[in-house]
Amino acid sequence: MDDTLLMIPGPTGLPPQVREALARPMIGHRTAEFGELLRRCTALLQELYRTGDDVLVLTASGTGAMEAALVSTLSPGDKVLSVSVGHFGERLGTIAEVFGADVTWLRAEWGQAAELAAVAAALAADDYAAMLLTQNETSTGVTNPVRELAAVARQRGVLTIIDAISGLGGVELRTDDWGLDVVVAGSQKAMMLPPGLAFVSLSEAAWERATQARMPRFYFDLVKARASLHDKAQTPYTPNVSMFFALEAALTMLRDEGIEAVWQRHARCANLVREGVQRLGLRLFADARHASNVVTSFLPPESADPSAITKPMWQEHGILITGGQGKLRGRIARIGHLGTINEEQVSRTLNALEAVL
Amino acid sequence: MDDTLLMIPGPTGLPPQVREALARPMIGHRTAEFGELLRRCTALLQELYRTGDDVLVLTASGTGAMEAALVSTLSPGDKVLSVSVGHFGERLGTIAEVFGADVTWLRAEWGQAAELAAVAAALAADDYAAMLLTQNETSTGVTNPVRELAAVARQRGVLTIIDAISGLGGVELRTDDWGLDVVVAGSQKAMMLPPGLAFVSLSEAAWERATQARMPRFYFDLVKARASLHDKAQTPYTPNVSMFFALEAALTMLRDEGIEAVWQRHARCANLVREGVQRLGLRLFADARHASNVVTSFLPPESADPSAITKPMWQEHGILITGGQGKLRGRIARIGHLGTINEEQVSRTLNALEAVL
Repeated sequence: MDDTLLMIPGPTGLPPQVREALARPMIGHRTAEFGELLRRCTALLQELYRTGDDVLVLTASGTGAMEAALVSTLSPGDKVLSVSVGHFGERLGTIAEVFGADVTWLRAEWGQAAELAAVAAALAADDYAAMLLTQNETSTGVTNPVRELAAVARQRGVLTIIDAISGLGGVELRTDDWGLDVVVAGSQKAMMLPPGLAFVSLSEAAWERATQARMPRFYFDLVKARASLHDKAQTPYTPNVSMFFALEAALTMLRDEGIEAVWQRHARCANLVREGVQRLGLRLFADARHASNVVTSFLPPESADPSAITKPMWQEHGILITGGQGKLRGRIARIGHLGTINEEQVSRTLNALEAVL
Repeated sequence: MDDTLLMIPGPTGLPPQVREALARPMIGHRTAEFGELLRRCTALLQELYRTGDDVLVLTASGTGAMEAALVSTLSPGDKVLSVSVGHFGERLGTIAEVFGADVTWLRAEWGQAAELAAVAAALAADDYAAMLLTQNETSTGVTNPVRELAAVARQRGVLTIIDAISGLGGVELRTDDWGLDVVVAGSQKAMMLPPGLAFVSLSEAAWERATQARMPRFYFDLVKARASLHDKAQTPYTPNVSMFFALEAALTMLRDEGIEAVWQRHARCANLVREGVQRLGLRLFADARHASNVVTSFLPPESADPSAITKPMWQEHGILITGGQGKLRGRIARIGHLGTINEEQVSRTLNALEAVL
């Protein structure tokens, strides 16, 4: 079906400009032409990230960039506080463990955000090298209060490593103003691109750590990536050139719309989804104070299996929504509303949902 | 320029079918539709690899798949023989070192292939867990006699880990017949795709090692990738869906042409390039007995800088060839002839080279 609608939390539908860019003829990745493209993309990413620091682009999906962020700034044995509110928070802390960090877990109930008092108490209880935090927890539909939580860590000189993969672009995030040290993002979310590129910004403090960090790394070595970018306007390893064409196209669209306007569009659509879902008599899963502007989770009626909703949404209406992840599998359904999202897509989705119910 | 010609050893020009596939609308990566696409791509990759074993697809470039191959089959302290004949041989062994392998280097002079007697002697001198070998050394234009070298290792029960990134599809390689344990490939070479996907096959012996291997790994965990493929027809982390559309298109073209016919086309074109370059009075760099069928290296006339050739080739003729890498930078020039390569492209390149000289 060509008029199918992806209402999942990534990948999202692709704008025509992105599809056109993907189809362009190939160019060499060690040419001046690619170097200029890389520099333009980097500048556009800095705008999206609201940072003057480097933003590096990796040919990988978001999980690869999580790994890059961790192995490029930490050493085996480093004490790390892993603040986890869902499936992706578990993943971030687990990667740190796999590479030898000494991880202390601070977990919130799934559906809740991390609490400031709990995080402050945990940070006070030990001497941590870094705090890991998910901006937007895709699995539960919760957005953490990153600004406030990061401020507490910053006061203690604890490096903040933020997974903003599903949120960046769709949910307000100001890397420099909020003093975020390491911020990870992915292409297939609010950036309206296919999966396959991922991004990491690093503050000056993070770069200082990077020069000391001793976790083993090669493909995901951000120190090497920064040197290639600065010295040669290249990536250390062959980049996905076609995705860079598309990256420039998508980031230009976001910049032209205005990053704050993009955040507002996501907030408007999210409100419509939340109101609409409740109007249909369904219960929202995530704590309303921290409901995500890019994905809405809700409980199926009368404890039915979520597939009783997601299947007919797809088969009868051509609209892809999804079920739960991890321990929420079979318990919740989720609607993604990010990227190209607009009011028309939201009402089409809500109308279909009403018909299905 | 739209009629530019990429005569570099990857990325190559893209066929129209690949460009069309890249531009397709996005689909969900946890759907039955993607699962079927993944299974079809896997079957086509098995044909290209000439293997009945699993071939796993990673969203990364070739270097990422090198890392995946090593960290998924080795443990820190494992004794590894790294047979290196150039820049990419150095890279493969270096990654093993970074992740804690105890690496013994067996190096050939750049421009030469690895010698069977030297490899046999090195293997006899210690008890190695694995031997690392480059099939086609892009930096020098040399193809190693993989079949013979791997046979020696196999006799000793030494696992063979082969970097076939630039050769697979363009140069004969028969994974099962030759008993190759781990074979790494990349999308942007003979497969006529953009960079961004990479591939690893593993033999039964390699899988046995994988279950014991203790190098730290997360994004590049092939055991997890195999489980996702078998259990759910998925990838563990979000794949570059658009590249899978293109992968199926390109592999179907190669299968329809016939894999052996594709090898022969590369051999024919390589012969024309080597003859043509010599006819113009230039000296080939690589040992003629092991000259690569996907990239030809040659010395510029009278020790001129290679850029005296590569620059006007690009600026005056729109044909991109390249210089040397690593310690051959400034010493040799290289012409890639792989992927969509045909006789017309070769003669256009040789005519331009003649004009430039």
